[in-house]
Amino acid sequence: MEYLELNGTKEGLSAAVDDMWVLNATYLVFYMQAGFCMLEAGVVRAKNAKSIIIKSIIDTAIGSLLFWALGFGLAFGNADKASNPIIGTSHFFLINYDNLSFFAFQWAFCATSITIVSGSLAERIHVTSCLVYTIAMSAFIYPLSAHWVWSYNGWLRQIGTNGIIDFSGGIVVHIVGGCIGLVGTYLVGPRIGRFDSDSGKPKPLPGHSITLYTLGAFIIWYGFYGFNTGSTLGVSGGRINIASRSAVTMTISACASCATTLLAIKIKSGKYDVVKSVNSLLGGLVSSAAVCSIVEPWAAFIIGCVAAFVYLGASTLLLKLRIDDPLDSSAIHFACGVWGALSVGLFSTQENLSLILKRETNVYGLFFGGGFQQLGIQLLGIIIVIVWCLFTSSILFLIMKKFHLLRIEPTKELVGIDIDHIGGPAYYY
Amino acid sequence: MEYLELNGTKEGLSAAVDDMWVLNATYLVFYMQAGFCMLEAGVVRAKNAKSIIIKSIIDTAIGSLLFWALGFGLAFGNADKASNPIIGTSHFFLINYDNLSFFAFQWAFCATSITIVSGSLAERIHVTSCLVYTIAMSAFIYPLSAHWVWSYNGWLRQIGTNGIIDFSGGIVVHIVGGCIGLVGTYLVGPRIGRFDSDSGKPKPLPGHSITLYTLGAFIIWYGFYGFNTGSTLGVSGGRINIASRSAVTMTISACASCATTLLAIKIKSGKYDVVKSVNSLLGGLVSSAAVCSIVEPWAAFIIGCVAAFVYLGASTLLLKLRIDDPLDSSAIHFACGVWGALSVGLFSTQENLSLILKRETNVYGLFFGGGFQQLGIQLLGIIIVIVWCLFTSSILFLIMKKFHLLRIEPTKELVGIDIDHIGGPAYYY
Amino acid sequence: MEYLELNGTKEGLSAAVDDMWVLNATYLVFYMQAGFCMLEAGVVRAKNAKSIIIKSIIDTAIGSLLFWALGFGLAFGNADKASNPIIGTSHFFLINYDNLSFFAFQWAFCATSITIVSGSLAERIHVTSCLVYTIAMSAFIYPLSAHWVWSYNGWLRQIGTNGIIDFSGGIVVHIVGGCIGLVGTYLVGPRIGRFDSDSGKPKPLPGHSITLYTLGAFIIWYGFYGFNTGSTLGVSGGRINIASRSAVTMTISACASCATTLLAIKIKSGKYDVVKSVNSLLGGLVSSAAVCSIVEPWAAFIIGCVAAFVYLGASTLLLKLRIDDPLDSSAIHFACGVWGALSVGLFSTQENLSLILKRETNVYGLFFGGGFQQLGIQLLGIIIVIVWCLFTSSILFLIMKKFHLLRIEPTKELVGIDIDHIGGPAYYY
Repeated sequence: MEYLELNGTKEGLSAAVDDMWVLNATYLVFYMQAGFCMLEAGVVRAKNAKSIIIKSIIDTAIGSLLFWALGFGLAFGNADKASNPIIGTSHFFLINYDNLSFFAFQWAFCATSITIVSGSLAERIHVTSCLVYTIAMSAFIYPLSAHWVWSYNGWLRQIGTNGIIDFSGGIVVHIVGGCIGLVGTYLVGPRIGRFDSDSGKPKPLPGHSITLYTLGAFIIWYGFYGFNTGSTLGVSGGRINIASRSAVTMTISACASCATTLLAIKIKSGKYDVVKSVNSLLGGLVSSAAVCSIVEPWAAFIIGCVAAFVYLGASTLLLKLRIDDPLDSSAIHFACGVWGALSVGLFSTQENLSLILKRETNVYGLFFGGGFQQLGIQLLGIIIVIVWCLFTSSILFLIMKKFHLLRIEPTKELVGIDIDHIGGPAYYY
Repeated sequence: MEYLELNGTKEGLSAAVDDMWVLNATYLVFYMQAGFCMLEAGVVRAKNAKSIIIKSIIDTAIGSLLFWALGFGLAFGNADKASNPIIGTSHFFLINYDNLSFFAFQWAFCATSITIVSGSLAERIHVTSCLVYTIAMSAFIYPLSAHWVWSYNGWLRQIGTNGIIDFSGGIVVHIVGGCIGLVGTYLVGPRIGRFDSDSGKPKPLPGHSITLYTLGAFIIWYGFYGFNTGSTLGVSGGRINIASRSAVTMTISACASCATTLLAIKIKSGKYDVVKSVNSLLGGLVSSAAVCSIVEPWAAFIIGCVAAFVYLGASTLLLKLRIDDPLDSSAIHFACGVWGALSVGLFSTQENLSLILKRETNVYGLFFGGGFQQLGIQLLGIIIVIVWCLFTSSILFLIMKKFHLLRIEPTKELVGIDIDHIGGPAYYY
Repeated sequence: MEYLELNGTKEGLSAAVDDMWVLNATYLVFYMQAGFCMLEAGVVRAKNAKSIIIKSIIDTAIGSLLFWALGFGLAFGNADKASNPIIGTSHFFLINYDNLSFFAFQWAFCATSITIVSGSLAERIHVTSCLVYTIAMSAFIYPLSAHWVWSYNGWLRQIGTNGIIDFSGGIVVHIVGGCIGLVGTYLVGPRIGRFDSDSGKPKPLPGHSITLYTLGAFIIWYGFYGFNTGSTLGVSGGRINIASRSAVTMTISACASCATTLLAIKIKSGKYDVVKSVNSLLGGLVSSAAVCSIVEPWAAFIIGCVAAFVYLGASTLLLKLRIDDPLDSSAIHFACGVWGALSVGLFSTQENLSLILKRETNVYGLFFGGGFQQLGIQLLGIIIVIVWCLFTSSILFLIMKKFHLLRIEPTKELVGIDIDHIGGPAYYY
């Protein structure tokens, strides 16, 4: 979305239509909160359903207030001026800022990134620790990543011919959220009973409701249409064609990833696996975020098929390393986010990339003869964002661990967080 | 929404885009029915889940048919002529009426207002009584309120310099629905077991599914974007900026209200409270309905913070008065609706108010030096609408009570309405 | 939707706005998948919830990939040339095809048609058989129906003065899906315990969650706004008025059908019936698909009232014939689809029909003096599509039956599909 002017006069019907597009997309992205909440609630055990809901509410409400107050200014302040490549410095509390539809869209993106984290940390952390990382992410970690990758003069946009390309948050939203979740789940440690104390082999801790889980995934899919196609920031000037392409390619990637996992597991084990198939659908969507606007449909199919194995591989690797990510959030958002961001350097075509850059470029996807440069820039940018997230979130979680704010006591974990922290269970039948 | 011409020629792309905006918003508002249904189903006990669903269906289906047949004509008939300030008299059954997108939007608003009532009356009334108040509201009580406040020549629009300001139904939808619900729940009396028979203290009757409840709230939040921003009735002529402002301020109010309650209860009791936090989110949305288009973001933050205490105060007061509102519907919609409608007189700025009035005005928010007039008009209008709802709904519910149509028998209440009235329970596990 | 040029230059803001309309509608139609999934999950027993979810995922993911690869080309390939009235022959894999928003909208329609089938076959078929009919439908059966009815030179469009009229898939989506489901459920046979082994009388096998069921129906209702009003394929050139009309008439039909069933059953049995009322709401929506754009609101009311009895009659007839359709999918989609498609020949007005045909026509609804021709053409088209579906799906299901791919073993049916095929139950409380 970074390739368009962020401020400027908005005159006439054309500007109104563009903003209308952005607002409708914003509503869809905010609605993804419902999806994440149901997805996460369904995949935890009933005794922790309320606690995961309160985490959703905290990251939405508190995170949104902080992004309004601080985060947006750090991310996009002075975005239109040749100022600071590291950090924005104006428009806090929206003071002297008029482009409210753009703000709203960015707002919903930040909320999405934060929400991703809670899945990785489910069922064993203090609710209050969610409050802490929400504050850190919305007011500091996320905004700086966004500034570097998306702001007009962000330093990762200045590298090489095109700068880093992250059309719709594959890096800024999904890698950031997934990576911080991974750090958190590693430092928190696995849930009690997740790995056999003798053999170290994983034991299933199935979630309490596959229907809620699936509902959540379908809502996220729906919201992703706003997420990915809203990043055109308008429909005028041919941008509707970029949006249409994005809608089609993201759907193909999602279906290809889902179908690949479904059939691969059926062939291997003889069973159909709902959770892994749905996770792969989400992984396909995530992998499309950075790249959906600049690839052909058949390339989106390949990206989706590979995303399935990226997800499955990452999920297996986590278990081998005895890292317990209850929702596979890091496998979905981090691993598939990395894959999608890299695929920009592999599959983007000259024509499509020129279209979103609004100028002819000679650097594009490796497989189309566009050379190694874009792939290298993507790789560099991904590494920098990962290092940034590793560094900041490690400090954050380690401080919380030090002060015993991170993990709840074992007896309370066995009973469930709901009884102790939230004052009662989620269900009375 | 009343500040725009309701009929008139619709030519060219501009009019098409405006109607497209209104239709998309209409879809969102109708979708709020799903949210209210899940919210209400989640907060009642499992034995009454089906009965609350059937009430949702009745108020949607029957209410919509009556508003099409009668209500819309009473509310907006002859809206564009200098006719009757009390009641509309034309366009019944949409005869000779062309502005179908405007009708559809109003239709969805009426359905929302009626739906609010069923929450207050949950778990103890006859399904048939829902049919009765749906008819009364859709064909009489709601349309007249709408006519007075929104119709071109409605009498509350004629008072003072600006007339009453209710941008998006804080008064017409939320106060009307919440007030009628309050009258109903007072006259029906509390559910068996809600108050200790000796001490009179409230005892918890927890709902059966917090996940459904939260899902409902998130859907309502999503639908509120249509509700509040659709009230611009278009995006041309700069109205998109009003819509963007409304989307941003309503989100800030909602998050501020939710965060305030969340933290206030945590500080006071040491626990996080999902239901009250989510209710406050809704209260923040409700408080934004009348005022979202005419305030600055920071004012929306204050309005939201205050809305939290308005909600909590109203909820506590209800219990002190031994009024049992199972969903806190009246605390959310009535109390926060009143607060939001009053805040028009406190926080509206001259620039924003002039923009929606389409002319320069010297009367605006008290805190910005706009004097007491608007606050007075808002207060007067609120009182008149409340008196109207108290009067009509008291008669309605008392007649039903007299004929034993209102409350089910105690034995049936203990067993649950589903078994007796609907032919079986909602769940088979 | 067939009355508009499918390809062609897309220039300027007008084309962008039209595509924006189509994309937003596409998102809504894809979101209907969430609705169908929850509807179907709620109405089966808990032991089969996961299996019905995996079927939803299969038909969405696999079906979408095949429609992209093959189906769309067979349906709309060379749609704008004077080529083949039977089958399309180009644009497979979207090669050399630019109108991606149109493709996406058709894509979502195909997914909807396939999803309808799984409801009829719930709780007793192999998951793999779902894979087989998904392939057959998305790559062959559905595309040919779509070509005949909607493609520029489809042969059913060439008959008579106006050709067959199916504005939004009453025939192509609902009759096709409902009819194939009916064939399937007939050949699979009833679930164990559905009919008393002595008397043959039906015994209730209630679904496990009415709340999920209702949620699904509300989501489908919401998605139907995209389904029906997106079929204008744009808002420019007065098409917004067709969209507004469609939104209003479909809502009236849905509410009229729902209210009719609600009151009819209450009067007859003294009870309110949630499932049948909600099914009638859906039946009303289905009946509006073919006709919503070309009728007056009062006619939509009549169509809805009749749809209720069409649904109830079909549902009763199925049971008399000892056909067990767990969701009443064929009664809703097939029977009400037929009624809606016929009502085009009865209720369409000259003015509205001329508007969507973009030329004055003298053949229109019988009740408005338009003669019998359109009714005859509708009847002929319906019969041809039914014969096509009966023929192809009978072969398909009989082959599966022959190779024991269709129905699971009785012991596994009693235990539930989830344990055996999907590796565990849907719920852990």
